[in-house]
Amino acid sequence: MTLSLDDARALDAADPLKAFRGRFTLPEGVLYLDGNSLGALPKATGKRVAEAVTTEWGEGLIRSWNSHDWIGGPARVGGKIARLIGAASHEVVVADSTSVNLYKLIVAAVRQQAGRTTVLSEPGNFPTDLYVAQGAAELLAGTSLRVLPINQLIEAIDADTALVMLTHVHYKSGAKHDMAAITRRAHEAGALVLWDLSHSAGAVEVDLNGADADLAVGCGYKYFNGGPGAPAFLFVAERHQASLRSPLTGWMGHAAPFAFDDDYQPAKGIDRFLCGTPSVLAMLALEVGLEQFDGTDMAAVSAKSQKLCSLFIDLVEDRCAGLGLTLATPRDPAGRGSHVSFAHADAYPIMQALIERGVIGDFRAPDIIRFGFTPLYVGFEDVWRAVQALREILTGGAWRADRFQTRSRVT
Amino acid sequence: MTLSLDDARALDAADPLKAFRGRFTLPEGVLYLDGNSLGALPKATGKRVAEAVTTEWGEGLIRSWNSHDWIGGPARVGGKIARLIGAASHEVVVADSTSVNLYKLIVAAVRQQAGRTTVLSEPGNFPTDLYVAQGAAELLAGTSLRVLPINQLIEAIDADTALVMLTHVHYKSGAKHDMAAITRRAHEAGALVLWDLSHSAGAVEVDLNGADADLAVGCGYKYFNGGPGAPAFLFVAERHQASLRSPLTGWMGHAAPFAFDDDYQPAKGIDRFLCGTPSVLAMLALEVGLEQFDGTDMAAVSAKSQKLCSLFIDLVEDRCAGLGLTLATPRDPAGRGSHVSFAHADAYPIMQALIERGVIGDFRAPDIIRFGFTPLYVGFEDVWRAVQALREILTGGAWRADRFQTRSRVT
Repeated sequence: MTLSLDDARALDAADPLKAFRGRFTLPEGVLYLDGNSLGALPKATGKRVAEAVTTEWGEGLIRSWNSHDWIGGPARVGGKIARLIGAASHEVVVADSTSVNLYKLIVAAVRQQAGRTTVLSEPGNFPTDLYVAQGAAELLAGTSLRVLPINQLIEAIDADTALVMLTHVHYKSGAKHDMAAITRRAHEAGALVLWDLSHSAGAVEVDLNGADADLAVGCGYKYFNGGPGAPAFLFVAERHQASLRSPLTGWMGHAAPFAFDDDYQPAKGIDRFLCGTPSVLAMLALEVGLEQFDGTDMAAVSAKSQKLCSLFIDLVEDRCAGLGLTLATPRDPAGRGSHVSFAHADAYPIMQALIERGVIGDFRAPDIIRFGFTPLYVGFEDVWRAVQALREILTGGAWRADRFQTRSRVT
Repeated sequence: MTLSLDDARALDAADPLKAFRGRFTLPEGVLYLDGNSLGALPKATGKRVAEAVTTEWGEGLIRSWNSHDWIGGPARVGGKIARLIGAASHEVVVADSTSVNLYKLIVAAVRQQAGRTTVLSEPGNFPTDLYVAQGAAELLAGTSLRVLPINQLIEAIDADTALVMLTHVHYKSGAKHDMAAITRRAHEAGALVLWDLSHSAGAVEVDLNGADADLAVGCGYKYFNGGPGAPAFLFVAERHQASLRSPLTGWMGHAAPFAFDDDYQPAKGIDRFLCGTPSVLAMLALEVGLEQFDGTDMAAVSAKSQKLCSLFIDLVEDRCAGLGLTLATPRDPAGRGSHVSFAHADAYPIMQALIERGVIGDFRAPDIIRFGFTPLYVGFEDVWRAVQALREILTGGAWRADRFQTRSRVT
């Protein structure tokens, strides 16, 4: 299959989401294929943040907690996420980081599952998920984290399993788990499931309530375009909200934070999973990121994601054949997220050479070049041009230059 | 003692910090006496945040983690806090919220103090401190939180005390503990001390290393002017860094976050107390807040704080005598922070009436009106005018109007 540049342009012309690209700032000369790591800047964000700084903080000062409803932000912004992940609005709040939210929900789940001692997860899961589970298991006497390849993990779910913790779409391979099937299997054994949606929310269809999901966390700075280090979110199914207790019992999770009582009483609903005072500027920037989904839905976004990724795989395998790349992402569109990875022995310098040329993807240790396709602002011509650049770099050997060999602090 | 408006103006004219006021945006018609709850907006913040949004995020995209040193932010901004609290720069990082940082350090300290089962704190401590300690104690088998009035607490420190957790300056009364003496007493018994600096850092002199302090946390959005919900900070004395382990083992606390190993290995130094990805916009706004201290030091700031508070107490007691107010803050300048509280049976509506008139302090349940004096932007004329407004409201009974009786969500 060889698709020409004109063919790619025709696909863009027919794209029902083509107008959304205009909502984002994309620098001249850059093909941005790393929205899975940091989403691009919405054009509306600068003005909204400036208003929050100048008017809400500068003029309103402390009064803005009420007058600009800063205090309602975690629930309000959570509600905007809810519709994109198949949850009810009272089941999602914005809070803290993904790592902190993982901790809250792992500990809450294990403590509710009295008598069960095992948390199951996958090797090669996103590191912070495993790290946080290790830290939580150390504190929860008698609890251990077992890390098993997915097929063995599914077999291992039993009456001792407190919690299955999985990332819906794998950060490196892009492989997507069957949320409904794994959740069903876990529930049959009486286990709960915690889904990390960091690499799926905002890129592929997620139906938490359709899958009868228990718990989920996810990231605000990837496909939700909330800005670097944007606040994260968490989901607790309504049926679990009254019984699960966060170990991080900060004042924002109290039933009456401004009563200033000495004793902790958790809020009735999802608010009990809040902890400290939220960063208002960061939360409002995330809200703008979410508003970029206004006028579409995840079915449309997901359909375009699948087409972009399929086209990229096909073009790379055609135009870069024999150049040392091996596909590391599932070929079946239904089995993957919105990024595509190829393995190459010289992945690091190759990605550096691509970035210098303006094609921004990223490297994931030890040997992966990774390309994210954010449907709201990536088009088919971008895919074509990215493959062209990759081919030229591989055939020309530009990546062998010394300047591409030194590792940066962040990769 | 009756000080005239002209006398107050003369004090402002002689104030060595008078020029600092010009670094802040203060709305027309407002006397802002709530910087102890949310610091005012530095004039430089808007431009810095806009640059971070437009240039660093919008143009630099993912590359800015390296090229704009976002990754170094927690340590760099922590270093700017360090000089203001008597710490070395490698002993402080910016991270998460005060509540989350309390949890990290309480759990880390108790786990290190094997065989000791008690955490001591005060009744009426800032609620989140007690709540977080309750949550931590529930998880740490055999550990209990004992809450005792300060004199009894000091007596109770013994061989079973793992940790003493105190807030340096009380959020409501403004009373300041003797950090060096209490720390010494705790060390004699082999206990550690965790100081919450939320109401002292940036307002009064704090000398953590001079007091041989072990651990501390504090807030970025009060006297550090970091903006609503700004990131918090934590301090771990160098001698404890290698042995204390955070329970929140997120990837940013890993020795090599971008190696993507499955197993957690804590970073060598203070970085092990980082957890998830930091909010960059919030962190950079906090950095600007801290830069407002450039050109002065905490001795000068603290000296002005004491004068402002003393003047306020004297004027209120003179001009509002017999109007139902009772001083709730220590009279000795060395024994208090930078806010002053008075009790009144109708505290809530009185404060609402003051706020409507542009004198912004706050109410703290059940009966306190609280006024914060931030030395960088509050002057002596402000103090005089605030007392004048308070007197007029109390004598005229304006606060009895219906509109002042209904409680807001945030007070």
